[in-house]
Amino acid sequence: MFDFTDRDLKEPHGIRMIGAPFDGTVSFRPGARFGPAAIRDASDGVESYSPYLDAELEAVHYADSGDLELPMGNVETVLSIIREAVDDCLNDNAVPFLLGGEHLASLPAIEAVHEKYPNLVVIQLDAHADQRDDYLGVELSHACVMRRVSEFLGDENIRQLGIRSGTKYEYDLMKGFGTLTTFKEEDLDELVEWVADRPVYLTVDLDVFDPAYLPGTGTPEPGGIDWWTFQRFIKAMTDVDIVGLDVVELAPQLDSSACSSVLAAKCVREMLLVAAK
Amino acid sequence: MFDFTDRDLKEPHGIRMIGAPFDGTVSFRPGARFGPAAIRDASDGVESYSPYLDAELEAVHYADSGDLELPMGNVETVLSIIREAVDDCLNDNAVPFLLGGEHLASLPAIEAVHEKYPNLVVIQLDAHADQRDDYLGVELSHACVMRRVSEFLGDENIRQLGIRSGTKYEYDLMKGFGTLTTFKEEDLDELVEWVADRPVYLTVDLDVFDPAYLPGTGTPEPGGIDWWTFQRFIKAMTDVDIVGLDVVELAPQLDSSACSSVLAAKCVREMLLVAAK
Amino acid sequence: MFDFTDRDLKEPHGIRMIGAPFDGTVSFRPGARFGPAAIRDASDGVESYSPYLDAELEAVHYADSGDLELPMGNVETVLSIIREAVDDCLNDNAVPFLLGGEHLASLPAIEAVHEKYPNLVVIQLDAHADQRDDYLGVELSHACVMRRVSEFLGDENIRQLGIRSGTKYEYDLMKGFGTLTTFKEEDLDELVEWVADRPVYLTVDLDVFDPAYLPGTGTPEPGGIDWWTFQRFIKAMTDVDIVGLDVVELAPQLDSSACSSVLAAKCVREMLLVAAK
Amino acid sequence: MFDFTDRDLKEPHGIRMIGAPFDGTVSFRPGARFGPAAIRDASDGVESYSPYLDAELEAVHYADSGDLELPMGNVETVLSIIREAVDDCLNDNAVPFLLGGEHLASLPAIEAVHEKYPNLVVIQLDAHADQRDDYLGVELSHACVMRRVSEFLGDENIRQLGIRSGTKYEYDLMKGFGTLTTFKEEDLDELVEWVADRPVYLTVDLDVFDPAYLPGTGTPEPGGIDWWTFQRFIKAMTDVDIVGLDVVELAPQLDSSACSSVLAAKCVREMLLVAAK
Amino acid sequence: MFDFTDRDLKEPHGIRMIGAPFDGTVSFRPGARFGPAAIRDASDGVESYSPYLDAELEAVHYADSGDLELPMGNVETVLSIIREAVDDCLNDNAVPFLLGGEHLASLPAIEAVHEKYPNLVVIQLDAHADQRDDYLGVELSHACVMRRVSEFLGDENIRQLGIRSGTKYEYDLMKGFGTLTTFKEEDLDELVEWVADRPVYLTVDLDVFDPAYLPGTGTPEPGGIDWWTFQRFIKAMTDVDIVGLDVVELAPQLDSSACSSVLAAKCVREMLLVAAK
Amino acid sequence: MFDFTDRDLKEPHGIRMIGAPFDGTVSFRPGARFGPAAIRDASDGVESYSPYLDAELEAVHYADSGDLELPMGNVETVLSIIREAVDDCLNDNAVPFLLGGEHLASLPAIEAVHEKYPNLVVIQLDAHADQRDDYLGVELSHACVMRRVSEFLGDENIRQLGIRSGTKYEYDLMKGFGTLTTFKEEDLDELVEWVADRPVYLTVDLDVFDPAYLPGTGTPEPGGIDWWTFQRFIKAMTDVDIVGLDVVELAPQLDSSACSSVLAAKCVREMLLVAAK
Repeated sequence: MFDFTDRDLKEPHGIRMIGAPFDGTVSFRPGARFGPAAIRDASDGVESYSPYLDAELEAVHYADSGDLELPMGNVETVLSIIREAVDDCLNDNAVPFLLGGEHLASLPAIEAVHEKYPNLVVIQLDAHADQRDDYLGVELSHACVMRRVSEFLGDENIRQLGIRSGTKYEYDLMKGFGTLTTFKEEDLDELVEWVADRPVYLTVDLDVFDPAYLPGTGTPEPGGIDWWTFQRFIKAMTDVDIVGLDVVELAPQLDSSACSSVLAAKCVREMLLVAAK
Repeated sequence: MFDFTDRDLKEPHGIRMIGAPFDGTVSFRPGARFGPAAIRDASDGVESYSPYLDAELEAVHYADSGDLELPMGNVETVLSIIREAVDDCLNDNAVPFLLGGEHLASLPAIEAVHEKYPNLVVIQLDAHADQRDDYLGVELSHACVMRRVSEFLGDENIRQLGIRSGTKYEYDLMKGFGTLTTFKEEDLDELVEWVADRPVYLTVDLDVFDPAYLPGTGTPEPGGIDWWTFQRFIKAMTDVDIVGLDVVELAPQLDSSACSSVLAAKCVREMLLVAAK
Repeated sequence: MFDFTDRDLKEPHGIRMIGAPFDGTVSFRPGARFGPAAIRDASDGVESYSPYLDAELEAVHYADSGDLELPMGNVETVLSIIREAVDDCLNDNAVPFLLGGEHLASLPAIEAVHEKYPNLVVIQLDAHADQRDDYLGVELSHACVMRRVSEFLGDENIRQLGIRSGTKYEYDLMKGFGTLTTFKEEDLDELVEWVADRPVYLTVDLDVFDPAYLPGTGTPEPGGIDWWTFQRFIKAMTDVDIVGLDVVELAPQLDSSACSSVLAAKCVREMLLVAAK
Repeated sequence: MFDFTDRDLKEPHGIRMIGAPFDGTVSFRPGARFGPAAIRDASDGVESYSPYLDAELEAVHYADSGDLELPMGNVETVLSIIREAVDDCLNDNAVPFLLGGEHLASLPAIEAVHEKYPNLVVIQLDAHADQRDDYLGVELSHACVMRRVSEFLGDENIRQLGIRSGTKYEYDLMKGFGTLTTFKEEDLDELVEWVADRPVYLTVDLDVFDPAYLPGTGTPEPGGIDWWTFQRFIKAMTDVDIVGLDVVELAPQLDSSACSSVLAAKCVREMLLVAAK
Repeated sequence: MFDFTDRDLKEPHGIRMIGAPFDGTVSFRPGARFGPAAIRDASDGVESYSPYLDAELEAVHYADSGDLELPMGNVETVLSIIREAVDDCLNDNAVPFLLGGEHLASLPAIEAVHEKYPNLVVIQLDAHADQRDDYLGVELSHACVMRRVSEFLGDENIRQLGIRSGTKYEYDLMKGFGTLTTFKEEDLDELVEWVADRPVYLTVDLDVFDPAYLPGTGTPEPGGIDWWTFQRFIKAMTDVDIVGLDVVELAPQLDSSACSSVLAAKCVREMLLVAAK
Repeated sequence: MFDFTDRDLKEPHGIRMIGAPFDGTVSFRPGARFGPAAIRDASDGVESYSPYLDAELEAVHYADSGDLELPMGNVETVLSIIREAVDDCLNDNAVPFLLGGEHLASLPAIEAVHEKYPNLVVIQLDAHADQRDDYLGVELSHACVMRRVSEFLGDENIRQLGIRSGTKYEYDLMKGFGTLTTFKEEDLDELVEWVADRPVYLTVDLDVFDPAYLPGTGTPEPGGIDWWTFQRFIKAMTDVDIVGLDVVELAPQLDSSACSSVLAAKCVREMLLVAAK
């Protein structure tokens, strides 16, 4: 069992987990605010050893800084609190690992990491394009987060895997950008080549998984990936330089079996292991 | 069964139901956004005749205008949309009956009704004082709604029943204001006398009920009222001039038996009957 | 714990439990078909000794004959199968105790018992009048069962307790019939006097309880009775000659806590004890 | 998001959705009556654009005529009401798209469509053969629906995909009929050739999906298809002349995550798109 | 909101909360192991001010020492670990407040407190007698805990309130012991007189509440108390010298609304306030 | 539908099902005690004919001896009761088929079968190694069961399929033992060769399935098998001499859709068919 809640940040250059229990712009079904706590709970039943990577989490330098206190109903304040926490983390030379919360929580994290690493690239695992200009007139929405990221990072520095839902407009946009790729072996190889030695921010919207594997998310989309596909992706990331990462959109109260939380905790374990290399 | 979803507003001076599916400032457990739909669903299983009041809803002039489209993540816009809908309703000489949504949704409704009826008084049924100045720095929060109402209406024009949770500061405030009263027969008599012939806005936070009767609410508080107490209150309102009303804070997904929604629908029926007189 | 599933009918004049897992005419929410199995399951956690009646179930002659096999989709056949089972029971000089299933299941049982006891009276505990002539054109519906019983038994031989929902037409009917009474001590005394030495069929629609105590029922109605009121009723029945009885409308899948099933099992225990005297 | 509930039937030759909330012959677990409402609810979170078909639902002529009022407990009447609604639809030159409800609801729809198109063929996606002669003596049962269809359509005009449960007798029957086929590319090609230019009624019992993807159905059967297999089937249907279709056996209350309803809504979108061509 | 999880034990004579997540002897439905975590979670939504006692928890010296690590499957070891933790607490002159877990967890706590206070009396709030000699041959069972306590404390030093389920044997025993009393004002007065100035261990099995108020418990019993009755009891304890206390048998996973956990957290608040005086 | 609950053991050499509703050493989430009852319930909706094996369960000699009465809280006694029941079964020349309950229940069953068949081999399907020496100091734990079996059977007589979680220590152990194999066709062929004509005990921990297919288990592990893989395994077992078998670790209350129980019942059917050959 890996119990990341009571570990200390042993060295400044370790990985720091930051809980961001926010779901204030979620339009369909809320509950991502309960994500960080559910991942911590589920980690009690997950081994610290990964037979997939033949690696042991006990050997990784990471720590959990707990949940930020985020005022629902004030999006700007929420984003600035997350931004500040990620800035602090980077100033301590630690790698930020955000536990969402909704996908909008990634925005200030990517902004902060980008400020430190101007040649940053972003890899997004997601079912949804998140490329809307606005959603019901709101620009700071979880449905627009990658649009906002594109605006400061450049669409040429983003790659998107697992997307299977969007408007016609979004699909046209993504095809124009050339951001879409797949989990096929050859595409993963191409992805790693594309990254080359640039620093990577990895954002994992858990609805990239098929709802069969992860029913506990606000906007489930049939046709998603399974554990083995995720595992193949993680292995491809082995030699990539990950400087920031997040796991978002777990809405645990929608899955009374808690299997979604267990899957999320196991993803966190693998991501910690691969980011630590 | 009363099926309020497909009724037309027969006459301009009837009652107009307005769904406000908003829960964006809820700090503990969200889900009040699903309230209006759940009340409509549950009304299918509720008779249109009230044996308590010996009155028939079929004879009442009311209609359901459906749900407002409210952008989560932008509180000010949400409040202005609600305000506009209530203004429209009042301009048509209809009585607004808001279906929440969280309690903050009542704020623009009371503001609008107050503008039309400057001598308005508010009667609040609630478990919580909602008299905080701010909540985590946010002033437009469901935990502060009655504080905001006090500021423009005057605390001397508010009466609160069922309150059983608050900070020491809130209790001192309410005692100073003299807003607290109870459901005892003599107190209800005094309440009606206090109202006299002034117009009344009636706001019912459903957590005034004990969680045994209504577990489907975000912040349940043991020690609440039962159906018969609510019925006694409704009868006391018979000759009162109700010019605006709401039912808020039903979070139906927290009660898998749906009994909370049935109770809420039955409250709506009784409130329609008493407001129609 | 009382384990009524593996008892034998020791003597012909004992009480015979008959499961009738039928809910084919339920209009709102089905699931009463799961009632008999849930009551048996819950009885495992209920003591065989009643401190209320200071009586021990181990001393009672009763047995469970299991569930009838009832073809959903063919109401007439279902009713005739129930009728036959109750006839067999009466021919064996056993007292039938039906476990529903929906309330329509009571109809053939009351018919059979009435044929044996022409001076039968019926006492109905229920939230709903069940006095409709038809429901959406269907006369054999759970919403009409007491109307059908009235037609062959005479409305003067029925008493109804706990009714709190119906159409205006049904209420006028019941007032005309004089069938309505209450759980007040003096009304229970009057009820027992009215029964005198006539044989009684006791039909308990579990929605007579408030949904707080029994959320697991298809059409819950706020304002119902609690355990102590039921207990008072049961004590009043001590010297009454009960010749048939039933418990209907438990829909256990609507109450994930299973407390509704426990309450139902405890009612069954008390009813067995009072019917055995 | 596609919101099919408030669209008008723009042209007479469009597709008309008809809700048939009936589950009166379901033997194991009821709840398919809640299917149509759940599909409508879930459609709020589903995009109107299909990246699989690169097609936009906004361009399709379809409308939702809402739910039929079906009296539980009277199967013949229920079937005749459905029949009448489908007849009306065909008379208006619209294509009927039935939303069940249980699979028996397909019977009157197929009968009506067959009357208009005597050379009709039926393609059935299902986990169960539904080829019983009767079930517990009942011939109009969801377990017998394809037997009834065979009787007037001829078994040579039926093809069945996804079947993985039945009695030995049913399997012998289907092998004799030669109705069984699979989702393999070559079998789908053969299926389309078999159809040729004949009109097709497509009936989709959602339990054709594996319970992992669709746990919300009354009689789940391990070993079913996934989304990609369904997608392959839909693409094969592109040039087929679909003159009637249905989606049945969603029992949404069995899946508290609502992922089953989302999958069903997405199937409806794809079926609308392919039927509209 | 009271957040007892991150408080330090300010002074040695404060109250120390000890989580005992054990349910290994529970025969009917397990899950009490999740009780301590659920109470801590729910405390986030509960105010620190009690309007009933007009007292503020912020002023109380208490701290949470977290959960003991208890090996399921080894009852003796579990009990000795609890014993040791309570001994440590007493040695630090702190008052132990155990959060169960099942009722058997109280046994080592009462033993330890009794060793320190030989003239200890125990007040038990419970639905069940827990006076069995053994349960299926097991003497260390939650169904026997008060029998075990009687053996070393003497039955004359125990009082039991709320008991409403037991065997005939247990009832005879309790009547012989004279341990049974009620929540009536006069009985509470007599109880306080009986205590006099002796030290009290207060053990609250949460199933003393009616299942309507607390469905989340392993063996619910209809006919229990409500919040106001508990409040009356707590007020009666104001001047009593409480030297040890516990809250047991919350099984939160049985109540998906979490209202049971909120009620338990509110009980804990009131018990802390009254024990601190 | 196969209704194994009311069958008699027709011949002494048939298969005898024994329910072992025990989960006393489960550390994470209990509930496996409800497994046997859930499998029996679900079998009502499962056909007795297997189209996969083209075999009919009606032709198999098997019977259900019901559940053992196992005292929670006394592991040694529980194990000895199971041991005795399996010994009785073997003495009657019947094949024991244990329905767990947690995996520790397999220990006495394998011991008993091994005593009768000294050259026994064990095939374990499982997500977890279960090769710990002890768990929190407890040696008789479900996390250690295969370690205990190894000790008397010899690690060379065990093969493990589906393992995907364990400590580094356990993986080193299993690699040293050479017990690990896979579900690939060639590995299944090798497995059957390895068995040769030795008697086999087949133990199926249901968490070998992916949580998508079987969420109802205490310690779900992403990355498991699906139905078709299980089916391939079962076919490989066709000519193997199975002398004892079990299905363990179904925790049905964790899967409110009951699909896990249906899958388990279908596994039981296939295992009965293959063991009967």
